Amino acid sequence: MTVHTQQVAIELGDRGYQIAIGDDLFDNPASYATLPGASTALIVSNTTVAPLYVSRLKQALEAGYERILELQLPDGEEFKTWESLQKVFDALLSAGCDRKTVLFALGGGVVGDMTGFAAATYMRGVPFVQVPTTLLAQVDSSVGGKTAINHPLGKNMIGAFYQPRLVVCDLSVLSTLPKREFSSGLAEVIKYGPIADTEFLGWLEVSMDQLLAQAPEALAHAVRRSCEIKAWVVGQDEKETGLRAILNFGHTFGHAIETGMGYGVWLHGEGVGAGMVMAAELSHRLGLVDAAFVKRLTRLIERAGLPTKGPVLDAQDNAGRYLELMRLDKKSEAGEIRFVVIDGPGRAAVRPAPDMLVRQVIDACCA
Amino acid sequence: MTVHTQQVAIELGDRGYQIAIGDDLFDNPASYATLPGASTALIVSNTTVAPLYVSRLKQALEAGYERILELQLPDGEEFKTWESLQKVFDALLSAGCDRKTVLFALGGGVVGDMTGFAAATYMRGVPFVQVPTTLLAQVDSSVGGKTAINHPLGKNMIGAFYQPRLVVCDLSVLSTLPKREFSSGLAEVIKYGPIADTEFLGWLEVSMDQLLAQAPEALAHAVRRSCEIKAWVVGQDEKETGLRAILNFGHTFGHAIETGMGYGVWLHGEGVGAGMVMAAELSHRLGLVDAAFVKRLTRLIERAGLPTKGPVLDAQDNAGRYLELMRLDKKSEAGEIRFVVIDGPGRAAVRPAPDMLVRQVIDACCA
Repeated sequence: MTVHTQQVAIELGDRGYQIAIGDDLFDNPASYATLPGASTALIVSNTTVAPLYVSRLKQALEAGYERILELQLPDGEEFKTWESLQKVFDALLSAGCDRKTVLFALGGGVVGDMTGFAAATYMRGVPFVQVPTTLLAQVDSSVGGKTAINHPLGKNMIGAFYQPRLVVCDLSVLSTLPKREFSSGLAEVIKYGPIADTEFLGWLEVSMDQLLAQAPEALAHAVRRSCEIKAWVVGQDEKETGLRAILNFGHTFGHAIETGMGYGVWLHGEGVGAGMVMAAELSHRLGLVDAAFVKRLTRLIERAGLPTKGPVLDAQDNAGRYLELMRLDKKSEAGEIRFVVIDGPGRAAVRPAPDMLVRQVIDACCA
Repeated sequence: MTVHTQQVAIELGDRGYQIAIGDDLFDNPASYATLPGASTALIVSNTTVAPLYVSRLKQALEAGYERILELQLPDGEEFKTWESLQKVFDALLSAGCDRKTVLFALGGGVVGDMTGFAAATYMRGVPFVQVPTTLLAQVDSSVGGKTAINHPLGKNMIGAFYQPRLVVCDLSVLSTLPKREFSSGLAEVIKYGPIADTEFLGWLEVSMDQLLAQAPEALAHAVRRSCEIKAWVVGQDEKETGLRAILNFGHTFGHAIETGMGYGVWLHGEGVGAGMVMAAELSHRLGLVDAAFVKRLTRLIERAGLPTKGPVLDAQDNAGRYLELMRLDKKSEAGEIRFVVIDGPGRAAVRPAPDMLVRQVIDACCA
């Protein structure tokens, strides 16, 4: 491929770092030249990614570390648990890894979130690097320092804000991604349009076919622009005391879908796809956007190969079940759910909504 | 009692807070007046402390919170595990606790470390308050933001630096402390002398009998001076990149004793007591202090009711077992153990030592 490597900076003072975006980056030793010295590296991946890429990453790291350890976790959201995390600690401690050991997260969002949380808490913090191998991780989860594991009662409920030292987004690895996973990543790409950049939303409408065909220049633009918007938001509100919550557009409904269906049944981006339709519909019913906007966004989500209707989580009281799950959302306060809504072109806000209105939205948007 | 309430400030910018030291503080609503508003509080204590103090704390908090939840953990270092931590998350999630919920750690070091780690990671961080009920927690573990749980392979291996919003050291609760626990706390008090303040060391020698009798003024001085020294160190090096490691004087050997004997068999302060003798002996054999200093410190530790000899952890190769356990210490780098040694009056340093010398120290200091 011929894409020129680009850098996006996350400005967070002494916790700041670079996102490198381009081709053939992850297996190039030069990509890791700026990392702090250490005797040991641990590559955490999963059983799907490891056979494809782990030996190439290992080779790239050989000049920098005396020892390169490897650990494969099971693949899937349903394994984003304490038990998997414990495997990382066991690997580190049984090999006598010290406080300078660098962890490399080679995989998608699940590997990245768990490796990041392990790095945040092993000996109260060791350095880590994100090497995302899915579109979703490249445009969203690997950037910004949110790390977590799931709890049976709610997604990402236990975690930390802990920034990586570096993110290496190698576009060439996306070619091995199953179509369904690629579409799931597109949900997070699409998200950035309505919340922050109407021009980007227009570009996505024009470029969706090229993106689905993984045309290099289109893919590079989508990843770079997504990372730029995320970097801008995170740079202003690292720990989500305000603005950062807009990145959760579609996620309040989406997390309820993921938790309600059982982790791993719907992919994260699929939940976010249907969730964005619901959040747009709610914005419309709150009088913030017109029906044409909801239609436009729904059409784009559909073209990306994503569901635009939520699943029925409870045959008796579906809306009630959604509400029950959403009350546990991290944005909730004193039992009041706070939704990310669109309140103008490229502009999002966080606000509560009457239960009755939310019920109507759920009834209208589930099938 | 008649002790005037005193405040010690931890200077850490927007993560700074006050330590209040005095009598009848923990059950006084005024002690908590500066905390951020929230609808829910969770008091985490243990099965020993709860019957004594939890209802009084609850009453003091009633004006500030709509809901006050309670959770009792089992008592003892052997329960400082993920399983106990999970109980805190279960309690929070099953009650639908939001991101503003304030956690209160009412108990000793184990309750404080676990509640702090739960606060650091629940929804990626909620506020928490330390209400230490042991001398050890008041002078050391509740101050400075080190939170952790143990791993079967090493003590405090999984945790976070996460500061409380407030520490309330109520001296009157120490009267119910068993003698052995009180002595364990004295180990951490004594520590501050050799590493930072020879005058305090001299005062401790003069005042040990009064301290053991819990004379109010002596106790207040010991707690305040300990907190002042800790605040000074933590204010300079919150995340232990350098100076803060001196607070671990005696702990490299002490943690090996605790892990090697099985958590809970030796109290933390007992391990630190014997560990300080070993660290002083090592300092002497490295030519940094004279034999009289080792004798003086050993005598003080003995008077505090603490062991001055380490246990035999392995009948075949005792020193080898200590070394194996200490190599996992968080200060170790690339397999080299780094010891906190005394290298002058009231001055500590961190440095490696030849295995052979460490073996001699262990052989000389175990019984």
